[in-house]
Amino acid sequence: MDDVSFPKGFKAWGLACGIKKNGKPDLGVLVSEPPAQVFSAFTRNAVKAAPVLYDQKVAAAGGRVSHVLVNSGNANACTGARGYQDVTAEVAHLREAAAPKGQVMVSSTGVIGEYLPMEKIRAGIARLFAPGETFSPFIHAIMTTDTFEKRSQKSLLLDGKEVRLGGVAKGAGMIRPNMATMLAYLTTDLELDGDYSERFLAAVEKSFNSISVDGDMSTNDTALLLANGASGMRYASLSEPARKAFDEGLRGVMEELAKLIIRDGEGATKLVTIETVGARSVEDAKAVCRAIANSPLVKTAFFGGDANWGRVLAAAGYSGAELVPEKTALEFCGVKVMAQGGALVYDEDDVANRMKAKDVSVRVDLGLGQSSWTYWTCDLSYEYVKINAAYRT
Amino acid sequence: MDDVSFPKGFKAWGLACGIKKNGKPDLGVLVSEPPAQVFSAFTRNAVKAAPVLYDQKVAAAGGRVSHVLVNSGNANACTGARGYQDVTAEVAHLREAAAPKGQVMVSSTGVIGEYLPMEKIRAGIARLFAPGETFSPFIHAIMTTDTFEKRSQKSLLLDGKEVRLGGVAKGAGMIRPNMATMLAYLTTDLELDGDYSERFLAAVEKSFNSISVDGDMSTNDTALLLANGASGMRYASLSEPARKAFDEGLRGVMEELAKLIIRDGEGATKLVTIETVGARSVEDAKAVCRAIANSPLVKTAFFGGDANWGRVLAAAGYSGAELVPEKTALEFCGVKVMAQGGALVYDEDDVANRMKAKDVSVRVDLGLGQSSWTYWTCDLSYEYVKINAAYRT
Repeated sequence: MDDVSFPKGFKAWGLACGIKKNGKPDLGVLVSEPPAQVFSAFTRNAVKAAPVLYDQKVAAAGGRVSHVLVNSGNANACTGARGYQDVTAEVAHLREAAAPKGQVMVSSTGVIGEYLPMEKIRAGIARLFAPGETFSPFIHAIMTTDTFEKRSQKSLLLDGKEVRLGGVAKGAGMIRPNMATMLAYLTTDLELDGDYSERFLAAVEKSFNSISVDGDMSTNDTALLLANGASGMRYASLSEPARKAFDEGLRGVMEELAKLIIRDGEGATKLVTIETVGARSVEDAKAVCRAIANSPLVKTAFFGGDANWGRVLAAAGYSGAELVPEKTALEFCGVKVMAQGGALVYDEDDVANRMKAKDVSVRVDLGLGQSSWTYWTCDLSYEYVKINAAYRT
Repeated sequence: MDDVSFPKGFKAWGLACGIKKNGKPDLGVLVSEPPAQVFSAFTRNAVKAAPVLYDQKVAAAGGRVSHVLVNSGNANACTGARGYQDVTAEVAHLREAAAPKGQVMVSSTGVIGEYLPMEKIRAGIARLFAPGETFSPFIHAIMTTDTFEKRSQKSLLLDGKEVRLGGVAKGAGMIRPNMATMLAYLTTDLELDGDYSERFLAAVEKSFNSISVDGDMSTNDTALLLANGASGMRYASLSEPARKAFDEGLRGVMEELAKLIIRDGEGATKLVTIETVGARSVEDAKAVCRAIANSPLVKTAFFGGDANWGRVLAAAGYSGAELVPEKTALEFCGVKVMAQGGALVYDEDDVANRMKAKDVSVRVDLGLGQSSWTYWTCDLSYEYVKINAAYRT
């Protein structure tokens, strides 16, 4: 079973309709009965794929969503007016095949600059709702170069009743042959009002927007939260501790998925947690995390197991955040290596051993204020270059 | 002869004083007689090395400069108050040894977080001005992991009289074992008034600030222009065409040095010229160039000889510049591959052949305005990862 169908009222499945040449699943659908309140976050790239443009309109219109159709193998990006028409045609095919009770959203991921094979997709949609068909898990239908499934689920007891959370994601950096995508689908059977949007976006900021494989941002990035109320519980009626427990549970599922994406980062051998504390503002803390996470010098040093505090300090220095070297301190994997802008004496062998682990960390204390942020990235390896230097085939 | 001593009144030389363990030259001096008006540009990193902080004070005070002392092998960065005292001590030693007629500036490049070996430097400074010593070229004394010399010189005929320009630079990315540095020294025997600073900074923007090996910015980056008037010519007295010829000549020397740094970029196999035209503003054009130049996905694609327009478009899309996919066009090595946001039909073999050259290019036409910018970067290879992943030794 897919983790997105763990909450009540959700179903999800997929099949292979021939978009991918290798015959793997490439078309999936997530269905909510009753239709769900939807919360969304899309790529901020000025170049947005057709399905993103379409979903933004659906989200803006505000109706409840019953179906999310996803294909892999083709991103329907950089396809102009015809690409957008293809999305509306997909929705029309789905309306014909499934008579949805709510709105329909669409996601695509895969090669860019090519038109969708609409005949295959039309036939695939019909088969998705045909009796007697055999289906694959939804999560397989959304994967591209992912080497493992990213899934998470949680059962919460809120004011004495069970509420469920589920989520799946795909993404492993911007992927060969072109730019691919982070797609994430979160589901819950709690009823959420429209004003939950702010909390959802804050959770996106702390999870999917706080990871970086290579600093590149795709044209198709999408995160959707569907809340259908099938548990009979409503966020607005919960006690304050129960609301906090739900917020924390949702953030936890999203953080877990985000970290799984990093673990599957192209060529990644390590998950690097970057924590910035003591910043004058949250924006400063984020800027320092982001500069460190995107520095090729820092990332290659992590690949080499090198506690290279000079590179980390230099990245923090050009992040744009307020930084005073004499007040700055650095830790690698829990060991203080620099304070007040200068090197400390530490056990180099001990740190070198800690840096060999699959989970490593760097902590920057700016010593200027109370704000902090946490970010996740991976190292930069030979394999990353190999994957991305290969000619499109 | 060093190219910085090509203009009249300049001398430059170096020697090995033992900072570098391999016995290579590591201490050099550039002398101007008469002392020179100095124009400077320093790293914008919040973490600045001690010599940068010192030179900024000298530049702000505004006196003419007769000596620039440079060491390699140790960056005197992240060395706090003691590091700054060491710079003042270096200046005092030089004053003792050479009785300079003007101000003294100091640069350092190499390992960070270690104090300068002041006894070696003190002895080295004395030897630099001792009779009977044998010297190495200045340019060798400033090199770290550079694999070749970066030098340029030009003779200009301005209003019928000769004026000379010279320059040397070092830098090959932020270099093992820690962050190293772009250092550039430009000289001319033309007399320049203080208000030339704006033009110098504009030329820096178009050369050293328009290159990127890996997007990292060092603590020690320094570009100095020394103008001593030894030609008997003065910029303020030149005809308008002669002034333009000088501006262009200076910019040309700086651009040549900047490109040489990129050619020597860590692991670089190609020089990539990135041109953005049709932007709404110069800032937008620069932002697009910078995003493309720093994208690991674009850089690995160039290493692989792949005209991957999707990655280039995506990088342009997240650059923050105004961009409308339907108005955007892309060229690789002179061949149009995308227009109006969609793929064009082109001869893939032809483009693949062109992408095999050592000099390749990408051109983005945003189709929105008249502003443009040019930027240079290198590809991202296995060798870059190898160089930077190796543990500090």
